Amino acid sequence: MADPRLPDNRPSTPLLDTVASPADLKGMSDAQLRRVADELRAETISAVSVTGGHLGAGLGVVELTVAIHAVFDTPKDRLIWDVGHQCYPHKILTGRRDRIRTLRMGGGLSGFTKRAESAYDPFGAAHSSTSISAALGFATARDLGQSDRNGDAIAVIGDGAMSAGMAYEALNNAGHQKRRLIVILNDNEMSIAPPVGAMSDYLTRLWTTNPFQDFRAAAKSAERFLPAPLREGARRARELIKGAALGGTLFEELGFDYVGPIDGHDMDSLLAVLRTVKARADGPVLIHALTKKGKGYAPAESADDKYHGVSKFDVVTGAQAKAASNAPSYTKVFANALIAEAEADPRIVAVTGAMPDGTGLNLFARRFPNRCFDVGIAEQHAVTYCAGMAAGGLKPFAAIYSTFLQRGYDQVVHDVAIQKLPVRFAIDRAGLVGADGATHAGSFDVAYLSNLPGFVVMAAADEAELMHMVATAAAYDEGPSAFRYPRGEGVGVEMPARGVPLEIGRGRIVKEGGKVAILSFGTRLAEAMKAAEELDARGLSATVADARFAKPLDRDLILRLAREHAALITVEEGATGGFGAHVLHLLANEGALDGGLRIRTLCFPDAFIDQDSPARMYELAGVNAGHMVAAALAALGEAPSDAARA
Amino acid sequence: MADPRLPDNRPSTPLLDTVASPADLKGMSDAQLRRVADELRAETISAVSVTGGHLGAGLGVVELTVAIHAVFDTPKDRLIWDVGHQCYPHKILTGRRDRIRTLRMGGGLSGFTKRAESAYDPFGAAHSSTSISAALGFATARDLGQSDRNGDAIAVIGDGAMSAGMAYEALNNAGHQKRRLIVILNDNEMSIAPPVGAMSDYLTRLWTTNPFQDFRAAAKSAERFLPAPLREGARRARELIKGAALGGTLFEELGFDYVGPIDGHDMDSLLAVLRTVKARADGPVLIHALTKKGKGYAPAESADDKYHGVSKFDVVTGAQAKAASNAPSYTKVFANALIAEAEADPRIVAVTGAMPDGTGLNLFARRFPNRCFDVGIAEQHAVTYCAGMAAGGLKPFAAIYSTFLQRGYDQVVHDVAIQKLPVRFAIDRAGLVGADGATHAGSFDVAYLSNLPGFVVMAAADEAELMHMVATAAAYDEGPSAFRYPRGEGVGVEMPARGVPLEIGRGRIVKEGGKVAILSFGTRLAEAMKAAEELDARGLSATVADARFAKPLDRDLILRLAREHAALITVEEGATGGFGAHVLHLLANEGALDGGLRIRTLCFPDAFIDQDSPARMYELAGVNAGHMVAAALAALGEAPSDAARA
Repeated sequence: MADPRLPDNRPSTPLLDTVASPADLKGMSDAQLRRVADELRAETISAVSVTGGHLGAGLGVVELTVAIHAVFDTPKDRLIWDVGHQCYPHKILTGRRDRIRTLRMGGGLSGFTKRAESAYDPFGAAHSSTSISAALGFATARDLGQSDRNGDAIAVIGDGAMSAGMAYEALNNAGHQKRRLIVILNDNEMSIAPPVGAMSDYLTRLWTTNPFQDFRAAAKSAERFLPAPLREGARRARELIKGAALGGTLFEELGFDYVGPIDGHDMDSLLAVLRTVKARADGPVLIHALTKKGKGYAPAESADDKYHGVSKFDVVTGAQAKAASNAPSYTKVFANALIAEAEADPRIVAVTGAMPDGTGLNLFARRFPNRCFDVGIAEQHAVTYCAGMAAGGLKPFAAIYSTFLQRGYDQVVHDVAIQKLPVRFAIDRAGLVGADGATHAGSFDVAYLSNLPGFVVMAAADEAELMHMVATAAAYDEGPSAFRYPRGEGVGVEMPARGVPLEIGRGRIVKEGGKVAILSFGTRLAEAMKAAEELDARGLSATVADARFAKPLDRDLILRLAREHAALITVEEGATGGFGAHVLHLLANEGALDGGLRIRTLCFPDAFIDQDSPARMYELAGVNAGHMVAAALAALGEAPSDAARA
Repeated sequence: MADPRLPDNRPSTPLLDTVASPADLKGMSDAQLRRVADELRAETISAVSVTGGHLGAGLGVVELTVAIHAVFDTPKDRLIWDVGHQCYPHKILTGRRDRIRTLRMGGGLSGFTKRAESAYDPFGAAHSSTSISAALGFATARDLGQSDRNGDAIAVIGDGAMSAGMAYEALNNAGHQKRRLIVILNDNEMSIAPPVGAMSDYLTRLWTTNPFQDFRAAAKSAERFLPAPLREGARRARELIKGAALGGTLFEELGFDYVGPIDGHDMDSLLAVLRTVKARADGPVLIHALTKKGKGYAPAESADDKYHGVSKFDVVTGAQAKAASNAPSYTKVFANALIAEAEADPRIVAVTGAMPDGTGLNLFARRFPNRCFDVGIAEQHAVTYCAGMAAGGLKPFAAIYSTFLQRGYDQVVHDVAIQKLPVRFAIDRAGLVGADGATHAGSFDVAYLSNLPGFVVMAAADEAELMHMVATAAAYDEGPSAFRYPRGEGVGVEMPARGVPLEIGRGRIVKEGGKVAILSFGTRLAEAMKAAEELDARGLSATVADARFAKPLDRDLILRLAREHAALITVEEGATGGFGAHVLHLLANEGALDGGLRIRTLCFPDAFIDQDSPARMYELAGVNAGHMVAAALAALGEAPSDAARA
């Protein structure tokens, strides 16, 4: 590997420098491709040391990336990376090397694949387990004669993503449709969290009981894919040897031809297998490649999480630059608050979908190993599993990011809300999330939960409020409840020793004023206070209220605010149809708008917001203090000052 | 079987008459249990002939129902019927026989299992594939010492439900957790539609390649479940014979012990296997029972859909009483309109999730067999598959009921909306649906789609409008679109020869008035016209507008209505946070509420509405003409007359 310790932190990559696009790989020898892979690894490490991001995943697929682009004709052949954490080497190879050091930054490259970014990204990703369905879609379009699109469809999916039902649904359909389709199972030793479930156990058995095939054997096993007339004889022959050298029974039962396991870092094996599959496959094929997350970079290989997501780091030492903060993260506050509640109530259990670290449940699991369940990437199951536990007498907390809870939406409606079961949803990453961009924004949960009969929906204004909401959810046993909180650090308020249950459906006045009321739901409260200060300074005395609940709404509070102020501004960290909408419904149907109310609802705009710093994203979203001031002034017919516009 | 042709249509059921609850089965001989099953079958046929409903599914599990209740200790043991279509015999046995002829009627028994209805329904269902997750939840609660709940957890799931990813997620977790858990795979020859996918092919191979086990062999194979110390030896022995008499490799790979296949109508086999499993199981067990949908009732057995859902019928002839109607159903109008579009555009394809008949796509499939895809119960895959096809150049229509599209919500957000891919969603069963009740209501789609950036969301006011909306969706290629329409017949308007694409984001004035405006979204338009007539008669001249689009809203139209009328009433067939909410957002932020607007938003109430006639449900929901009149009068401060209250 090239030494990454070069001036400007750039490794020497003479061969990679000649690759402007995958076409430039076509004339290379296998030995040259190996060298490209080495240089690509060094370049990836160097780039991520500057930008931060997902390092381990990309390092695990460097050889695979080179081999696929060398063998297949991208972008005519559609290469779909599942999740997309592993796509940085792919971006470097596909014309985006000049911008690779802008990864995950505002205006820079996305940290995931993205259709708008490149023809080499035929299908964007970020949430897991979508790639096989999408690839089957491309294969179908090809077979239905979308003539300029007659290439192969290749999905690369990790073992962790195989725990999601969606991947199974796609396998089930692909195996049945029998179209030519190539699925590469990138079986690395470690997804974000240790992979969960029987499928993962099965994959481990597959590769521990079947020896690595060397590249000659691998190519030979792939040669089983014969033209159709010869297939039946070959199939019979294969049945005989199944279970001997070859594993993969489960995938074969689902209608796939199975090749592997092969060493995903051995370029010879990869090239031999991919070339054979490309030449011979006439149905769905699953190639089982074993890789090592973080491969080739010692600090990553030895880290517990294999450098899943990293901050900027020093290439030599691997030391990550972490921003100092005085306030605890909301995630950690949640985890500690839940532990405190669970100490007092043995019925409390917690469930995560493959995000024990991200949700803080790793802390809970350490304290209560038997009361914490990581179900893998399986939000549908997570929600209904919680519903079953609630029906069985437990008090389950489902800790799921806002964006991922979308995966379990029907289960929230059908299994939890309709049955009025007291499942508690701890919704982390509510609002805008920064570098992960639009796909990870928690924009919709308030809207999709607040119209479910019987739900209690809360948002924490600060980290102390979050503690109270954990306590509220623990105490509230009459039906489902949810509380949301953002990514990142709290505001540094004084923390109570223990959370105290809130009265359901009661907000609070934080500051009394007379002319304008700002009604905040969530952590915009600090901005609301800033806005109020400015409005006060202009002689427009401002009341600030923290709604705490989007459902049930605090009717008395809201009607009073409407009655006693000339203007009312609602603000939230989410899309339309959520908190502000429910305030409007209430006011309209109570007749509180009949006589005129200068009401404005600040929500996220009608656009997906690309990655940037959270501060910049909130500014773009139009829910900062300045926007509140501007909205209040406009509502009152006052001329905005420059300050208010800022 | 008892002769069902008895006075009052009631069969003679002397033994069943002695069964007030499952406890009464405990003292019976196996021969008596067989007789109870025969009588239970006759009673089920008789009851459904009066009520209509799901007949075939229940007839397929009569013996299974008796055997489970005879062997296990319900309700302490938790029996969870997946979907619940098959639960009528269970209801008869569990204390609800006296109300069985009220099935699916207003105030009567639910057509599904329902917690509120009986302790014997520990977990309600209606959407498919939730049972294993729920059962694992109960098993977890038991193992965590919820002491009064220390029974078994038993899920009965059909082969069709196994195509859903959620079932796989649950198997994957259950197989990994290794808790004692009993899953009975009710493999009938026919789910709602012929089952789809490689899993279904696999199940068929399992039972075609493995002979039925007679009850002695079945019991013996179940005896493999030995106490833990003896298990290892037994496991080794089993490995040797695997693939010989026993199938089930796939389930065993996922960590389940597999028993079967057994004849699900042979009481001896069922009792022997269940007793053995109850006595010996110490981990997750899957019992594979083969059943016949409609078993024991000739008209059902010979029908194509095995009497999946039936109207009231004559027990002797099997003839179903169908309500006469002059107008075509919305479903059929959609199907024919889509066929017309597809004749003109070869890129149009259609996708259904196991509902070809329910969505009308059976007609489309007949005309375009290669352009219609039934993916099975797999809405997540369906949506992303469509996204892939759209990215590949096709024009996919995903025809999915409103309530089931909830299963694919994340995919709608992440794969379709964020990527702005032109997938067309044909949302059938929007609004309230009658006998299927709350679980099948299409209440939330407008709310959960209308805040997705770039989406076009339409609702048809009548069947001609639906034709135009199909044409609109076919023509609109810039991003995702959705159009919704209700269950049942249209209003009988004149139909165009072919749909004409509508201008995106333009509503229409249907009737001009001056004092009040009613702005309708969807098929409430006819009620709105009725309301207008009554308002006109009271001297309150009413404008009626059909919004057509919830997104993008017709700003000009809405602002004009607000400006030119003293009161504005919005009405829709859905929950809060949807159309009315977006109208309110617009008016608020345009300042159109500043001077006062008597606006009322008629949406579904904040409650799940139980099954009843659709008319009665809409009355309960408060979105009929009388409610619009009352809202308008109240808004204008006029006293309502008795007529307006009606």
